[in-house]
Amino acid sequence: MTLALPAAEAARELVEPVLREAVARLDPLTARVARYHFGWADSDDRPCAGGGKALRPTLAVLSGRAAGADVERCLPAAAAVELVHAFSLLHDDVMDDDPVRRHRPAAWTVFGRSHALLCGNALLTLAGELLLEQETPGCAAAARALNEAALSLMAGQALDLEFQGRDDVTREECLRMSRCKTASLLACACSIGVTAAGGPASLAGSLAAFGAEAGLAFQLADDLLGIWGSTEATGKPVLADLRTRKKSLPVVAALTGPTAAGRRLAELLARPEPLAESDLHDAARLVEEAGGRAWAEAETGRRLDAATRHLDEADLPADVRAEFLHLARFIATRDH
Amino acid sequence: MTLALPAAEAARELVEPVLREAVARLDPLTARVARYHFGWADSDDRPCAGGGKALRPTLAVLSGRAAGADVERCLPAAAAVELVHAFSLLHDDVMDDDPVRRHRPAAWTVFGRSHALLCGNALLTLAGELLLEQETPGCAAAARALNEAALSLMAGQALDLEFQGRDDVTREECLRMSRCKTASLLACACSIGVTAAGGPASLAGSLAAFGAEAGLAFQLADDLLGIWGSTEATGKPVLADLRTRKKSLPVVAALTGPTAAGRRLAELLARPEPLAESDLHDAARLVEEAGGRAWAEAETGRRLDAATRHLDEADLPADVRAEFLHLARFIATRDH
Repeated sequence: MTLALPAAEAARELVEPVLREAVARLDPLTARVARYHFGWADSDDRPCAGGGKALRPTLAVLSGRAAGADVERCLPAAAAVELVHAFSLLHDDVMDDDPVRRHRPAAWTVFGRSHALLCGNALLTLAGELLLEQETPGCAAAARALNEAALSLMAGQALDLEFQGRDDVTREECLRMSRCKTASLLACACSIGVTAAGGPASLAGSLAAFGAEAGLAFQLADDLLGIWGSTEATGKPVLADLRTRKKSLPVVAALTGPTAAGRRLAELLARPEPLAESDLHDAARLVEEAGGRAWAEAETGRRLDAATRHLDEADLPADVRAEFLHLARFIATRDH
Repeated sequence: MTLALPAAEAARELVEPVLREAVARLDPLTARVARYHFGWADSDDRPCAGGGKALRPTLAVLSGRAAGADVERCLPAAAAVELVHAFSLLHDDVMDDDPVRRHRPAAWTVFGRSHALLCGNALLTLAGELLLEQETPGCAAAARALNEAALSLMAGQALDLEFQGRDDVTREECLRMSRCKTASLLACACSIGVTAAGGPASLAGSLAAFGAEAGLAFQLADDLLGIWGSTEATGKPVLADLRTRKKSLPVVAALTGPTAAGRRLAELLARPEPLAESDLHDAARLVEEAGGRAWAEAETGRRLDAATRHLDEADLPADVRAEFLHLARFIATRDH
């Protein structure tokens, strides 16, 4: 998915040179893995057009604008958040044994697990470097906030791995995992520009709360796409999350409800053998019958409402408020 | 190996509570892996006596004393360096498929690769956190120095992995790898106390140069132990580095010299089949005949001399100088 939004286009164009300069500092082997992962080069290191959707840098730049900071001053923070995101994708794909990322072979399938892990480590470390080399108290505080988000993200991945081996995961546990794994870095992206510019803590707090709720809406939308999204939208096979029996939010909502469909879904997912295509379609239907889809869609709306309320707490310039809101609605209402 | 030195004992006792408090902040799953890795708990999370040799924290505390800082003020930096070291051990053992660490099963064999990797990531991130939460310019600079050392360490691991697939590694390449993988974090440990305390950059520079040379001496000693060390000294099977055909410094020195023994060693190590015990003993003898052992022993001495010269550049209190020198000699002259 590309964010076809002017703010995202602008942020991507501004942040990419900062990311490229940072990657160029790495040892040649690791820089090559990073160029591939970011979509700047193919597996033979030939330049190619590509790249992620730059959602987090866009939010970080907006966050700086919320504090009245020059866009230029927000770029290290915007790039740093994207580096932490890239780190998590590189590592998660290794841990989850996931061979596809953004419609291409995941970096580990091209360069091996160790080099993908090392590249992730290097990008995580570079993120701190970009902020600390600014040598301002605001950027040191931003580095701290980003560290905290990274720790939360790791805790979320640890929970995700643990859930794979359990059949009694509750909806609350699943929401907590999503809060850690997805929402905390988005919360950081929405507030880091304020922190880096030395803006008021209350503004950073409101924007972080906005980002956390928008982040949950994002994860809910992602989980809905993971079942009902097209390959074109997700870059994965249809019904991808059911194939891997992922404990996604709609699935857990269906399993933990009191319905007969939920019980049949549990039986189906507990089968030891691989699921056939027809089983996958049955599973999707059962998630829907058990109310998992309706709950996830309604919950997405509730999270967006909560996000909007936090945005209203912050005294934002009208254009910044409108762009934040636009982004939150956009990421939570992707086609699925 | 335990550093049976008063300075090391004292540093370990002071730093361990800081490390324990930091680990207690992690999510429960990851904290458990960390307690095991640090030797504070067994695989069932029952408390046990153990722990590493605390070399890096000892050097960091000494470094702070070199700048006249209170020992208490050096502890976050000392703990942070140890956390980065722990991160690298956890990750390297996964990447190298190494099942033994400090005479015990490596963490990944107990908790799985993913949880060991996540624990490493969390410890790397906590290291930055411990320094940045001090909110002083010195500690922000120390966090930067530690980031740089971590990047160097990762570059060294990337080279190490690359060398495993090559049979034309030169002695200079091998030294460069050791400088990245081992010496840079020791250089950081020897200077981070000065940086954290806001001491003079020239003092930090001299101590970093001392640490880099002592670090190379350390790696040379380690590589000699990897061939001729007892299981008691290394916690690994005898001839461990020959078993894995590691491109260690004595081996590369033997392979790249012009001797017949070096050529026979190359043939032996190039055999596709696993090496028998008698082959390993032959290989050790050939490294010696080809001059690899003598070169590594002489090089250790040269690096120690260079380290001493850098120490002399720094205007240190006599007791601090003596302890630095004692530590450098101790780590470079372990029995092998």
